[in-house]
Amino acid sequence: MGFLSERSKYAVNPLEEDDAIAEAIERKGGEIIKLNRGDPAVYFPTPKYIKEAYVEAISENKTHYTETRGVRELVAAIMGRYRRMYGLELEEEDIVVTAGVSEALYMLSSALVDRKDRVIVFKPYYTQYIPYIGLAGGSEYLLDYKENEGWSIDVDELDRHVRKLKHKARIKYILLTNPNNPTGTVLSRKTLEGIVDLANEHNLLLVSDEIYDEIVFNGARFTSIAQVARGIPHVILNGASKNFDATGFRIGFTIVPGEDNLSKELKAKLADFASVRVSANAPAQYALAEGMNNVIEHSRAIRYMVNEIEDRVNFAVRLLDENKHLSTVRPRGAYYIFPRIDLKQLHFKSDKEFVDSLLKSKYVQITRGSGFGTPGHIRIVSLPPKEILGEAITRLNEFCRRKR
Amino acid sequence: MGFLSERSKYAVNPLEEDDAIAEAIERKGGEIIKLNRGDPAVYFPTPKYIKEAYVEAISENKTHYTETRGVRELVAAIMGRYRRMYGLELEEEDIVVTAGVSEALYMLSSALVDRKDRVIVFKPYYTQYIPYIGLAGGSEYLLDYKENEGWSIDVDELDRHVRKLKHKARIKYILLTNPNNPTGTVLSRKTLEGIVDLANEHNLLLVSDEIYDEIVFNGARFTSIAQVARGIPHVILNGASKNFDATGFRIGFTIVPGEDNLSKELKAKLADFASVRVSANAPAQYALAEGMNNVIEHSRAIRYMVNEIEDRVNFAVRLLDENKHLSTVRPRGAYYIFPRIDLKQLHFKSDKEFVDSLLKSKYVQITRGSGFGTPGHIRIVSLPPKEILGEAITRLNEFCRRKR
Repeated sequence: MGFLSERSKYAVNPLEEDDAIAEAIERKGGEIIKLNRGDPAVYFPTPKYIKEAYVEAISENKTHYTETRGVRELVAAIMGRYRRMYGLELEEEDIVVTAGVSEALYMLSSALVDRKDRVIVFKPYYTQYIPYIGLAGGSEYLLDYKENEGWSIDVDELDRHVRKLKHKARIKYILLTNPNNPTGTVLSRKTLEGIVDLANEHNLLLVSDEIYDEIVFNGARFTSIAQVARGIPHVILNGASKNFDATGFRIGFTIVPGEDNLSKELKAKLADFASVRVSANAPAQYALAEGMNNVIEHSRAIRYMVNEIEDRVNFAVRLLDENKHLSTVRPRGAYYIFPRIDLKQLHFKSDKEFVDSLLKSKYVQITRGSGFGTPGHIRIVSLPPKEILGEAITRLNEFCRRKR
Repeated sequence: MGFLSERSKYAVNPLEEDDAIAEAIERKGGEIIKLNRGDPAVYFPTPKYIKEAYVEAISENKTHYTETRGVRELVAAIMGRYRRMYGLELEEEDIVVTAGVSEALYMLSSALVDRKDRVIVFKPYYTQYIPYIGLAGGSEYLLDYKENEGWSIDVDELDRHVRKLKHKARIKYILLTNPNNPTGTVLSRKTLEGIVDLANEHNLLLVSDEIYDEIVFNGARFTSIAQVARGIPHVILNGASKNFDATGFRIGFTIVPGEDNLSKELKAKLADFASVRVSANAPAQYALAEGMNNVIEHSRAIRYMVNEIEDRVNFAVRLLDENKHLSTVRPRGAYYIFPRIDLKQLHFKSDKEFVDSLLKSKYVQITRGSGFGTPGHIRIVSLPPKEILGEAITRLNEFCRRKR
């Protein structure tokens, strides 16, 4: 590594690793179907009423630093959203506005994780969780989501691991992603209650990344950690990117609703972290406030987008099911599909080889499951219109047929 | 600290510490003159042509994630700016767009600093430098800017300290702020050349925060580190906030122009850090690109703002010079004034006590020098119009007279 810090090795993102290959193809005039980035705003323009609020904030010269913890209007809008959706009564002090959930993850791991500390993470995980834990000096303790139970969590297994682990290391938090990226799982209320009981018994902090909490379909019902974890310390992560279809705003937030000492310490420290970097983008904060406050426009926008996503995901799953080398758990949230792939049958040594070979020969860019901690799988972003998605999966299926 | 990480103690910002006092006064109807936050966009609206470009990007639905290292348009605009201003020929790979210089500081210290590593910082320093070094596990090695030499750097003294320090610890970089916050100093070309020679001799990386590089006045001439450090590894930090009067955009960037191995490793690693957090705010990047590309509009805007700042700073210095308990080095860049204050004569135990007492009795909020590592001083932000600035300093002077 030479001059770089030891810890800097954790700053890597497998989701972008094939971009160089893709760019080389594009430079030669090849057109790639990209199903590797989970960016709804590419396919569904950010709702007009939110863009109008953004423009209004700029016209009103709201282009200076804001309150370090977020503009009052946005903090109030977040309080309103959680009251409406989850019956949660928040205080201003519970909320810190961040530059996307990415910054929230950085602040959280820096605020909590020391060298040798452990964070319980389930795999397949959202790729960004891992670098931030490593950069803070800690390490992830990986458990599996259960593929044969719809990628759900086995609470008894979690309990056994916690009992074993807690004597060897400090467990700083259990990280949940609900709805899940990359599997599309929505955790059941019963599973969440089991996890909460366990956290309560072992005095563990729960962190729930709920950035897709309104993108649920196929009959799923979403439960926020806030609805079941009252009285025990927990953190909710959310933001503009997915539900408000505004990835490019880079506005996220942390919520720490508890009044226990740990929650109080943590929310004050997150505010300190916010203060150190001055503020998030100013006009985008006002735009997101309107995004939340204008309930009628938001309902219309999110209903349209989720219906479309449900349709596209189910269409893609049907096509993938025609491929006998893949087996797919049907997603019920977010917009990713995470099929298992029979590499042996297809004579591939790894999912990476599969993904690279597909990109080079068929100009379809997807992501390897090993990038999410679960080899032998691929992640497909099911956001493009059905013509494009259909074309991409047809190429993928043909690729597998030929390879056989 | 309880459950929080050991390192999280470094996440504090003395610039915001009196906000609670200020808010309490405001709740009772008191009106405070705030000279504590260096935010030009509060007093000079962000130029219209930049806001128009921002609005245009939003209308064109550029509200999705961007390239992780920054949109091509902005990267090209940065290359153009450095070619025009400093004759520097940059490659795309030299540049990473960040969420303000704050994020650049985080990335830089995370990429470079391990436990026990040292970073040479001059005091008074910009407050944010310190937390990011501490959070990365390292510590600052503090040297003084020389107040009696116009807050310049004594290169011989620096050399003596480097020779001593380098046998005890790894010196990861020397951090310069030019023009300086909080002193308003513009380093001379000769001083910079001396520092470059020294860095060359001892194989040290130079980092120059040049966020105020167009805000120079009172006859000063600014030299970028890039103009004198060719061939030796260095990093430039800059962004939208000050020169483009757009603090609320939260767009900064790092430039690593070198082709040596260290520079190459570092620029690749900064790109990795950018990739982990996906991207900076999207439409603001396009706005800043126009901010740089439209040279005619920019010249007009920056000339107006710098003339006004020069006028306000000099006006404030004249008023401060009437106060015999203060002594002030006249600034030549940025928009801060950093007077020394005779605490003993005024019967104050500390600059903190002085600043708090001024706020409570005169409703003027400034910042204590000890927050910048240099006790016995105060920092005054000289951005408000002269009526307000004059009123504030009149109150400050009266406060000192009464206290005597």
